[in-house]
Amino acid sequence: MISSTTNKQVKYVAALVKKAKTRKEEDLFVAEGLRMCSEIPKERIKSLYVSENFQKHPEFGALTAGVRHVEVVTDEVFRALSDTQTPQGILALVKQYHYTVGEVAGISGKGGNSSSGPKLLMVLERLQDPGNLGTILRAGEGAGVTGIIMDAHTADIYNPKVIRSTMGSVLRVPFVYVDDLGGTLSELKGHGIRLFAAHLDGTHNYEQEDYTGNTGFLIGNEANGLSEEIAGMADTFIRIPMAGKVESLNAAVAASVLIFEAARQRRQ
Amino acid sequence: MISSTTNKQVKYVAALVKKAKTRKEEDLFVAEGLRMCSEIPKERIKSLYVSENFQKHPEFGALTAGVRHVEVVTDEVFRALSDTQTPQGILALVKQYHYTVGEVAGISGKGGNSSSGPKLLMVLERLQDPGNLGTILRAGEGAGVTGIIMDAHTADIYNPKVIRSTMGSVLRVPFVYVDDLGGTLSELKGHGIRLFAAHLDGTHNYEQEDYTGNTGFLIGNEANGLSEEIAGMADTFIRIPMAGKVESLNAAVAASVLIFEAARQRRQ
Repeated sequence: MISSTTNKQVKYVAALVKKAKTRKEEDLFVAEGLRMCSEIPKERIKSLYVSENFQKHPEFGALTAGVRHVEVVTDEVFRALSDTQTPQGILALVKQYHYTVGEVAGISGKGGNSSSGPKLLMVLERLQDPGNLGTILRAGEGAGVTGIIMDAHTADIYNPKVIRSTMGSVLRVPFVYVDDLGGTLSELKGHGIRLFAAHLDGTHNYEQEDYTGNTGFLIGNEANGLSEEIAGMADTFIRIPMAGKVESLNAAVAASVLIFEAARQRRQ
Repeated sequence: MISSTTNKQVKYVAALVKKAKTRKEEDLFVAEGLRMCSEIPKERIKSLYVSENFQKHPEFGALTAGVRHVEVVTDEVFRALSDTQTPQGILALVKQYHYTVGEVAGISGKGGNSSSGPKLLMVLERLQDPGNLGTILRAGEGAGVTGIIMDAHTADIYNPKVIRSTMGSVLRVPFVYVDDLGGTLSELKGHGIRLFAAHLDGTHNYEQEDYTGNTGFLIGNEANGLSEEIAGMADTFIRIPMAGKVESLNAAVAASVLIFEAARQRRQ
């Protein structure tokens, strides 16, 4: 049992919790909590860290069975590792995902997103808030989003705050970061995916467009919206009409309104 | 100019930023930032605190004109007062709002919410997260929500995090806290307001109900949803159908999906 926060392994986990760079170098991320850890496919788990107290948990056996490396730490050490105020006593080091654009967009023949229905993609440009990103993943899975494409300036999806707020959706919705978002959008359009952007120049209300075919929604930065370059890639500008003096919606709310409208149309 | 953080006024403002109890006792809240302060009706502002540097701002004159009490503090003192990491240098002490249930629900003859169209109310029970509350106010104004009714266990709407995330909507959407939420809901129903709750026992998808009449949506706690008592007050249980393995949506997302569906129906 590890009882010191200066232990090498403990320092390693702490760096993975805190630093995007370390996560990238090690090709790992940290998932914390009972519910989250129980949803991770066992073959993705590199290590499980549990608190002394968690060993008595009724699900301890099921959670650790088949995991190659399980380490017990004192409750005090666990509190130091945890990113939450009331830690549940279990966290996993998990292998990062490496989907290709083709897999995420469902435009390659193999693997990844092989669902047969129309695609529903979220494209995120410079989305900064980890809470918004996690909320969009969770709402996205609920609305039937088939893939998420992000530019390199969007928040790190492996940030523990994002992981937590996805409520497990990060394990199930394919996603990819791309360096050349404009180029990727051209590729999507070439494959018949219609791109929509909420924009002040939009003339039609969002519910007046048809999202039952292959659809992608472009969502921009919380403060500045989409860049002109990326907005310009949209096939159609749409408007979310606003009452009162509201100029714009929170990015996760705007995204949710659009994808649940797409889901609604697909049920009709 | 105030140059010390031990100054009595500075301590008073700091207490108003941090403590719900002080805000209640003083009947004030703190609104920070240029945009926010420019939207507050002048007669509601008790005091304006500006940083030394903000005095040079082109809008300094317009913002302070007609305000009874303007106090300049050093940039260092302002940073200590500010709830944000990059303070803009202006904050206001603002009189709290005291709407009645009748005004918020639009069921009293006088004042408050006197819009003539159908009511669209949000009812929040034990909503805990300040960010969610602020997001619901902002999305609510955008969707045409006419009033917000909260139980006493819902987060404090005057928390600076809520104020900030409302982007000014807190100044425009009438709201009220009630001790007896069940009793208030009975009153609303007596006035012909139809109450809907997203609930696992819902048989119809949310878009299959009609929200063009007087409508109230019940939104519960982030982790536990609505209490049985309050859910039981709903006229109709509705379902937000969910793809994937998602069991529930973030409270602000669920609320937004419902109120923007109501707004959509009211445009048809």
